[in-house]
Amino acid sequence: MKIVCIGSGNVATHMANAFKENEADVIQVWSKDPANAATLAFETGAQAISDLKDIDLNADLYLIAVKDDAIAKIARFLKEVNGLVVHTSGATEMEVLSGIKNYGVFYPLQTFSKAEPIDFIHVPLCLEANTEENMSLLQLAAMKLSPLIYEVNTGKRKVLHLAGVFACNFVNHMYRLSQQIVEKQGLDFEILRPLIMETAVKAQNALPEDVQTGPAIRNDKQTILKHEGLLQKSPHLQEIYRILSNSIKKTR
Amino acid sequence: MKIVCIGSGNVATHMANAFKENEADVIQVWSKDPANAATLAFETGAQAISDLKDIDLNADLYLIAVKDDAIAKIARFLKEVNGLVVHTSGATEMEVLSGIKNYGVFYPLQTFSKAEPIDFIHVPLCLEANTEENMSLLQLAAMKLSPLIYEVNTGKRKVLHLAGVFACNFVNHMYRLSQQIVEKQGLDFEILRPLIMETAVKAQNALPEDVQTGPAIRNDKQTILKHEGLLQKSPHLQEIYRILSNSIKKTR
Repeated sequence: MKIVCIGSGNVATHMANAFKENEADVIQVWSKDPANAATLAFETGAQAISDLKDIDLNADLYLIAVKDDAIAKIARFLKEVNGLVVHTSGATEMEVLSGIKNYGVFYPLQTFSKAEPIDFIHVPLCLEANTEENMSLLQLAAMKLSPLIYEVNTGKRKVLHLAGVFACNFVNHMYRLSQQIVEKQGLDFEILRPLIMETAVKAQNALPEDVQTGPAIRNDKQTILKHEGLLQKSPHLQEIYRILSNSIKKTR
Repeated sequence: MKIVCIGSGNVATHMANAFKENEADVIQVWSKDPANAATLAFETGAQAISDLKDIDLNADLYLIAVKDDAIAKIARFLKEVNGLVVHTSGATEMEVLSGIKNYGVFYPLQTFSKAEPIDFIHVPLCLEANTEENMSLLQLAAMKLSPLIYEVNTGKRKVLHLAGVFACNFVNHMYRLSQQIVEKQGLDFEILRPLIMETAVKAQNALPEDVQTGPAIRNDKQTILKHEGLLQKSPHLQEIYRILSNSIKKTR
């Protein structure tokens, strides 16, 4: 399977490397920045290009892993290719690629950071394609990386992307606020890490609604008042504390 | 080391069992409900009691693991004991026990559920005692359970307890809301679990402030608008989305 990787950011880097390690042939890496293209191309044994006109027309799969608002522009340069063109965005409809013959979406529902390696067997891949044949091809490609393969249409994918903001981005922000709270007292964030881990582990085996703990779910007004008192000098944290405690109470 | 366990709830059960498995001798379990006392006493090979007047005066350690507002009442019955009396509450001052000769706090900073076993090597133990000698004794007891031992005074412990609400209770609530969002679309929460796990794993090696991702930290207004649109029919979720996105922007 010959793959062209369009983009050299976080997602592009992890995907191109994962494909390379799993018996796919990354033949080209495009980035508008030649140095970035060269870096990822070097890692994956591909050719680096920075002009979209140089894209090989005969690859099997074209992975567009760029910022959402750049996808449509790039798609215009891919009308002549013979293979399957997919973007990797959670929030963008598949039809942005409809000027192309064979197209689809290859959305990894995971958080990537450039520094940290990620094992793709823990990355759910959400697939969408314009024909059944293209879906089959996409599944074959996905199976090289992960056993977690889901067929998800544009509407549901957008909802998953939104849910990911709650399950990942907002969760990390809660970690951040807890860090702020302990550091203000000269305590190290380290002491909270086992609690953070256990909370995530619990959600692997149970539904979050069944394992909610804390003063709000118990309606423990005394503790809630004590906590609000501790946050007196941080009105911003106090507001978040109140809103989320009330939200938990609603789900009791 | 002879231990009396006062309480038979979540924390009492996990602690008593952990001590029993680590060469301490749980000699009595008290609960006002005789059946609950009997259950935990049976598990730990202890005597079950439901009258505080029956408490053995010659144990080394008395663990009070009951609801916060019951601690003071129980303490009144323990004035004659010879050993060290500790409560296990994050939100209660040590001095609630000051009518006793030897007293302190043994606060496990972790989330417990009755159904799930927990390995105490991942439970940070926050210790406080009224004398240095009692602190040494408490450290000896703590070392039987966990290598994560911290000396934390009442003020800092209360702050840790509050930080735990953000790092655990509010985090689980975010999981809950993400569950709600995907289930409304007929999608299974399962698909979000790898993302939840990876988000927690990231926080084990990095500081949350350094690994924040998502539309808010990128100030990606278009995606934020799309998400708010998807939540149009859930004003409650929309409000939380807005508040937390703004909070993330503030930390940029």
